[in-house]
Amino acid sequence: MKLATLRVNGSTRAVRLDGDRLVDLGAADLGEFLSQEDWAAKAAADAATTYPVEGADFAPVVPRPSKVVCVGLNYKNHIQEMGRDLPEHPTLFAKFADCLIGAADDIARPEETAEFDWEAELAVVIGKPVRRAKGAEAEAAIAGFTVLNDITCRDWQFRTREWLQGKMWDSSTPLGPYLVTPGDLPGGVRPELEVTLSVDGEVMQHDNTGDLLFDPVVLVEYVSTIVRLNPGDVIATGTPGGVGHARTPKRYLTGGERVVTEIQGIGRLENTVAKDGAA
Amino acid sequence: MKLATLRVNGSTRAVRLDGDRLVDLGAADLGEFLSQEDWAAKAAADAATTYPVEGADFAPVVPRPSKVVCVGLNYKNHIQEMGRDLPEHPTLFAKFADCLIGAADDIARPEETAEFDWEAELAVVIGKPVRRAKGAEAEAAIAGFTVLNDITCRDWQFRTREWLQGKMWDSSTPLGPYLVTPGDLPGGVRPELEVTLSVDGEVMQHDNTGDLLFDPVVLVEYVSTIVRLNPGDVIATGTPGGVGHARTPKRYLTGGERVVTEIQGIGRLENTVAKDGAA
Repeated sequence: MKLATLRVNGSTRAVRLDGDRLVDLGAADLGEFLSQEDWAAKAAADAATTYPVEGADFAPVVPRPSKVVCVGLNYKNHIQEMGRDLPEHPTLFAKFADCLIGAADDIARPEETAEFDWEAELAVVIGKPVRRAKGAEAEAAIAGFTVLNDITCRDWQFRTREWLQGKMWDSSTPLGPYLVTPGDLPGGVRPELEVTLSVDGEVMQHDNTGDLLFDPVVLVEYVSTIVRLNPGDVIATGTPGGVGHARTPKRYLTGGERVVTEIQGIGRLENTVAKDGAA
Repeated sequence: MKLATLRVNGSTRAVRLDGDRLVDLGAADLGEFLSQEDWAAKAAADAATTYPVEGADFAPVVPRPSKVVCVGLNYKNHIQEMGRDLPEHPTLFAKFADCLIGAADDIARPEETAEFDWEAELAVVIGKPVRRAKGAEAEAAIAGFTVLNDITCRDWQFRTREWLQGKMWDSSTPLGPYLVTPGDLPGGVRPELEVTLSVDGEVMQHDNTGDLLFDPVVLVEYVSTIVRLNPGDVIATGTPGGVGHARTPKRYLTGGERVVTEIQGIGRLENTVAKDGAA
């Protein structure tokens, strides 16, 4: 099952993909939809109102999550390219809802950065409220998976010892287009999917989500130990090797590029890098 | 003017302090109230519904801010006690709304930590949506100030190079009781106020908010460069010297202590450290 949040007439609607139509699920967005205890049953139901997939304008798959928790170092080859040892614990940092954009929206490149970089990521979307979830409870808390590009201003990330100020730029982070439920993915709640990021057609990142050091279930267990997870909350699972900052020579987004972030079986983000604040 | 969010009959109300009464401001909480463009005029108006201050049950002054951005190192003496040089840029990290508790609520001490520490802080509450605010616009974006205790699990803070996992524990962070508007404070938007934290009556932190390296206006300018600030958003301005982790010998909260965090002219948080998950 593929779910999304669609922009319709200046507002948004939660929808399910059904062939070439998007079926209205009776909620304003996927965050609100997932807050219903019986959302899985409701998601499968028929509905009178549908929209064409053709020309669909996707909002962030969850537009206003109460939290976006990101994992910094989680693919072995990316950890190695950044010159670090394999960690004992996941490294966590935050984004906020105001960072998020839709799957085809322009990425806002702020004029304040000279080191604007990409990070293709598998993202977990939470479907049940949990705290200190273990095993089967953590698995059941995963509504599904989506695609996130954890766009980063490297110069701001490394200004101080905390990464947040390189990570929380406004309207920088595409999330979507679809949430895909675990039953529809090879590997289920530990999906094994090709993840690829290209810039103007040149492949920069290519790996498999089965290679995660801390898998999605472990991450739900770990994060929910610390703080409750609410329906619609997002955990970004980290990026594989091939980011611009770790290339020789280093390579950054300067504006105008087309960045495509794709995870097999989930979907594809296609975003143009645009100057932030441009008319 | 002193504003707050009051718990009433299983819900909340935005209120203004007026003598020994709390005047209902016609909004569900202070976040919703501050989202109205003309909130300052509305805050001064009379209203029919009031509640007694005596026995008032305060919610977090803003219960669901879209973001809580915290500054890590901002009083010179605290920077020095942590063994660091004076920084060129503020160090930023995040908390989430689910971390927040009311001014008299119990602080949830998780069984997973052995190093549970305090950090008394002046917090800025935003009153206007801003991005890249400078000077007068940044000053005008400050609705007022409140008190925050940035409770921290030091062992988790230092597990990895990112602090977030020591900072985002559920129901750990009291915020309130009142938002005080800048016109009512010496120093205005750069308040000069005694800040004090005691544990079971023993003073642990005592400083003056006029000693901040990055003042509230500079912080609004800096954070809003990166991401929009919305009405109700919170910037915690950092803590002075005297945290438990930097004492000799180190000293942590083990449960049952009474932690009082007070900023002159704003108000006082009085919280008991309770076992998280206890019945």
